[in-house]
Amino acid sequence: MRYKITFQPMGKTVEVEEGTTVIEAAKIIGVTIDSPCAGRGRCGKCRVIDQTGKGLNPITDQEKKLLSPQLLARGFRLSCLARVIGDCEIFIPAASQLETGKILTSGLIPLGTGEIKLSPAVRKRFVRVERQTLQTQTSDLTSLKIALKASGEKVSELKAGLDVLRRLPVILRDADFEVTAVMRGDELIGVEVGNTENRLYGLALDIGTTTVVGSLVNLITGGEVAVSSEMNPQAVYGGDVVSRLTYAIEREEGLDALNEKVVGVINKIVDELIILSGVDRESIYDVTVVGNSAMHHLFLKIPPHHLAVLPYVPAVSDPVDAPARKLGIKVNEMANVHYLPNVAGFVGADAVGVILATGLGRRKGLTLAIDIGTNGEVVLSNGERVMACSTAAGPAFEGANITRGMRAAPGAIESFRIKENGEIDIKVIGNNTPVGICGSGIFDIVAELLRIGVVDSSGRMRRREELEGKLPEALIERIVEDETHGLSFKVARNEEEQILITQGDIRQVQLAKGAIRAGIEVIMKEMGVKADDLDEVLMAGAFGSYLHKESALRIGIIPPVPKDKIRFIGNAAMVGAKMALISSDMREEARRIARSVQYVPLATNPEFQTYFMEGMLFGASEI
Amino acid sequence: MRYKITFQPMGKTVEVEEGTTVIEAAKIIGVTIDSPCAGRGRCGKCRVIDQTGKGLNPITDQEKKLLSPQLLARGFRLSCLARVIGDCEIFIPAASQLETGKILTSGLIPLGTGEIKLSPAVRKRFVRVERQTLQTQTSDLTSLKIALKASGEKVSELKAGLDVLRRLPVILRDADFEVTAVMRGDELIGVEVGNTENRLYGLALDIGTTTVVGSLVNLITGGEVAVSSEMNPQAVYGGDVVSRLTYAIEREEGLDALNEKVVGVINKIVDELIILSGVDRESIYDVTVVGNSAMHHLFLKIPPHHLAVLPYVPAVSDPVDAPARKLGIKVNEMANVHYLPNVAGFVGADAVGVILATGLGRRKGLTLAIDIGTNGEVVLSNGERVMACSTAAGPAFEGANITRGMRAAPGAIESFRIKENGEIDIKVIGNNTPVGICGSGIFDIVAELLRIGVVDSSGRMRRREELEGKLPEALIERIVEDETHGLSFKVARNEEEQILITQGDIRQVQLAKGAIRAGIEVIMKEMGVKADDLDEVLMAGAFGSYLHKESALRIGIIPPVPKDKIRFIGNAAMVGAKMALISSDMREEARRIARSVQYVPLATNPEFQTYFMEGMLFGASEI
Repeated sequence: MRYKITFQPMGKTVEVEEGTTVIEAAKIIGVTIDSPCAGRGRCGKCRVIDQTGKGLNPITDQEKKLLSPQLLARGFRLSCLARVIGDCEIFIPAASQLETGKILTSGLIPLGTGEIKLSPAVRKRFVRVERQTLQTQTSDLTSLKIALKASGEKVSELKAGLDVLRRLPVILRDADFEVTAVMRGDELIGVEVGNTENRLYGLALDIGTTTVVGSLVNLITGGEVAVSSEMNPQAVYGGDVVSRLTYAIEREEGLDALNEKVVGVINKIVDELIILSGVDRESIYDVTVVGNSAMHHLFLKIPPHHLAVLPYVPAVSDPVDAPARKLGIKVNEMANVHYLPNVAGFVGADAVGVILATGLGRRKGLTLAIDIGTNGEVVLSNGERVMACSTAAGPAFEGANITRGMRAAPGAIESFRIKENGEIDIKVIGNNTPVGICGSGIFDIVAELLRIGVVDSSGRMRRREELEGKLPEALIERIVEDETHGLSFKVARNEEEQILITQGDIRQVQLAKGAIRAGIEVIMKEMGVKADDLDEVLMAGAFGSYLHKESALRIGIIPPVPKDKIRFIGNAAMVGAKMALISSDMREEARRIARSVQYVPLATNPEFQTYFMEGMLFGASEI
Repeated sequence: MRYKITFQPMGKTVEVEEGTTVIEAAKIIGVTIDSPCAGRGRCGKCRVIDQTGKGLNPITDQEKKLLSPQLLARGFRLSCLARVIGDCEIFIPAASQLETGKILTSGLIPLGTGEIKLSPAVRKRFVRVERQTLQTQTSDLTSLKIALKASGEKVSELKAGLDVLRRLPVILRDADFEVTAVMRGDELIGVEVGNTENRLYGLALDIGTTTVVGSLVNLITGGEVAVSSEMNPQAVYGGDVVSRLTYAIEREEGLDALNEKVVGVINKIVDELIILSGVDRESIYDVTVVGNSAMHHLFLKIPPHHLAVLPYVPAVSDPVDAPARKLGIKVNEMANVHYLPNVAGFVGADAVGVILATGLGRRKGLTLAIDIGTNGEVVLSNGERVMACSTAAGPAFEGANITRGMRAAPGAIESFRIKENGEIDIKVIGNNTPVGICGSGIFDIVAELLRIGVVDSSGRMRRREELEGKLPEALIERIVEDETHGLSFKVARNEEEQILITQGDIRQVQLAKGAIRAGIEVIMKEMGVKADDLDEVLMAGAFGSYLHKESALRIGIIPPVPKDKIRFIGNAAMVGAKMALISSDMREEARRIARSVQYVPLATNPEFQTYFMEGMLFGASEI
């Protein structure tokens, strides 16, 4: 019998004999599925996805051994073991195709000062090792080193740890002496069966107080393969860093509990990235991390007692390298985790990531960069000096502590406009039914309510009676009040309910923007500059892609500057983490940045409180 | 009330007021007991031994926390917490006294080619760290590095692992910012409270097939502090390396079981060394190991499958460095274990240790060295080329597989002579009642029985009737026969029983010496030299210190050479391990040796079998 097999995403169909393996069928349409063990069912890497759940032989025992239950549940099969027994449709993930060598740096460096040379910390080399004889009598490691040397590797200093040595004799013979060596610096960290040179991945992590984001990057091409984010589950111990540090310090098992939460969510993100991409866990050989100083201590499980009290001393500001296994991160067990350096106090590796991604300090002119998160970092550079501070903004702009707030995900209102006739124009991520409001939507809503006078310059929401005759009736009717929410404004509604913004939400926004604005004022004063001197204002953060410059200016989170001086740069801290992931030079640059940035402490600055009080106020409305 | 306190080993007595601490009392007689925490009962290092169990206050809770139950059972106390409440006698272990800086290399390098410069892999530096302020804002690690730099350490590349970072904030403040940094290369591996610069110890291990020896070395002075040995409990899985490798390969948990045995006995030896010396476990920061290739794989838990079959390929011949913690060795958890390099086949790090200790390859003339153990290593050097082979001698010369064999310990007959009048002259270790026979005694007994004709040149023991009239009656009466032992010779007796050497024991000796002699013949032939060409014959092994050259020559374990060419050099492999422990240069030298030595395989050498058959024979008797 012959059956039809359709391959996606190519959309090509071919007819094959019953019993043909998927890998053979793919060859007919000209797609080479990468199979390091040469189709012997040993390496578990030639993964494809069975789209319809029919037309293939039952899952073999070997596949059950090599694929996790989660992957099997998602339809993953090994193409050398899956055989056609009926019409079927197969999806080939990019990770299973032999790469074409295309460099995919799009979106990686929005403001880079030049091309980044790919120079990941881990490299691979495929070699054929000569079998030993009684005459040669070389050890397994020496034989491998001889083959590596012949292929051009410098091996005289190459060292192998116990884990690799314990596996080497078996792998070498399993692979018929054809293996891929995985190296980091002068250390042999892995030996894989067959040629796996094009399977080398890294994980970049941005551990935010409220949101944790992971990006899986192909270290051969530099391209991002998949991205995934989750709320930071440490939030159950407090929404801000201070309450979490307090928990860690005051409870006996506090640090362990907070550490488990963040490690757990990172492993969840890794699982998601694996399922999204088809990349196997063992091919993830490197990890870089950014996050503020508190996240740093909690993730690395370093007692944060002295970070929480004056003079706010972190245990370490140098970059930290530690085995992924030791940190509990479930990627290749020999992977290293590189936490980018901290500056001082709460100005952590996330700020360093922003500076790295934006090239601040190497850019001419006076540039202000703010990274809007639960801790808001403010960086000011005049091209020579770079100053930074950290403000406790709270999570309002990440959608937390806001009645209907949510992160930038499908269903989130990310843009909000009030037309002259009083009609409302909203954009919802994924064009879905609105279910909540993300950061950029919160910006817009507050800005628009300020513009039309529903909110006054003190942040007070006006009642219907105060606005009678001044606004279209349709707008006035949106102002409501009930016991649960107090005074509120109806932003939108879905089939079931109203989506409100409340007086309380406005106060959260005031606190957040007030803190960041005060940080900006302090730091500008420290450098002796004024808003008019600013050449550029860069706004970073994970608040959706539709942030309107007018809204940012209206709510006053940044000083008044011409609109064309403002740029939104997305999650720049994460971009910094990715740059450090694909380039060892960028790790060095990050280290240089952390040492050269001047830290501006706010906690003991008497002017900060004054600026903060002023910063919470809004400008006058237009109407 | 005033009481007398006597200090040992000084033998000095002083009278003090009731309640005086031992550390204060010692000061009066001019002995400064080292107390890094300045007598605050925090560091647990000012250990003394209560010799009489009376005259001191009851053990305090803090002592129970800082001293193990084993140490407490042995009378250990902390001199800053132990107070005089009656007459007492106190022993101060060397480890608790402030060192005088004397270099104790005696016995360390029997045949070294020069002075060894002390350059251990780990170093310590005491510093006073400046407390941070809001102005300085330096992290704990940076503050420590600044202090280290001021004291002359190169710190720009100094890295700290997660374990140290996790402890640093707490230790720094516990110590009031006065700490000792422990460094290995460019890595910060420890931070200790107070000044502990003179407490730095290393452990040298010789893992023999039959005997495991540990030596505790003071890395500041180079002197040996204590030594301890135990039988290798892997013997329950077979006395020789082949049966152990077979067990490791054929049983699912075989490798784990063998590994557990050797790790267990090493930890037992460490416990003994700690009790013998008073050194605290945490001060042992480095470990070096020698042993044959099979012991190497079993200790490091590397699958030995390919070592056991042709062409006998070890996984690694380079030196292996691994964390002590990972190997389960209970010393400081940041200690490194350095297993010296292997040559090839079964010629392992023990042979490298012998070559290092004897300076073979750098010595002029033709030198033969044999290391008599269960695997007997044979090394031949003409001053330029060095050749080595390994023979399966069996454990006879370590006292195993011999009816009354035992290791060189109190009660062992280590020397045996038959006088002209037939009287027997024996030496027993410790002048104790004889309970068994150690290696040197076995050498002597077999040699003497050969000399007087009780054993013939084929190794057969003669019956009484064959010797009538040729030997004094007293000797003839010592020849006995029973069902259990067969034909035997009464060597000595203690109060309870006879100590016999049996026909079977003689056969074990023949096998052992035949194998080693055959190895010598093969290797001499390979180099194209004869016995007459030999300038020196070095005999190493753990067989007691009374080995007689005549006995070695008589039983023919070595070729016939003039007596003055023979030297006994003790446990040279262990000396090599100690040299590598106190000197990084010697580690490099060991690496050079392992690469340059020419391995001579015996297993497939057809002449080896012939030499072995010949080698088992003895020469003619004198009588």
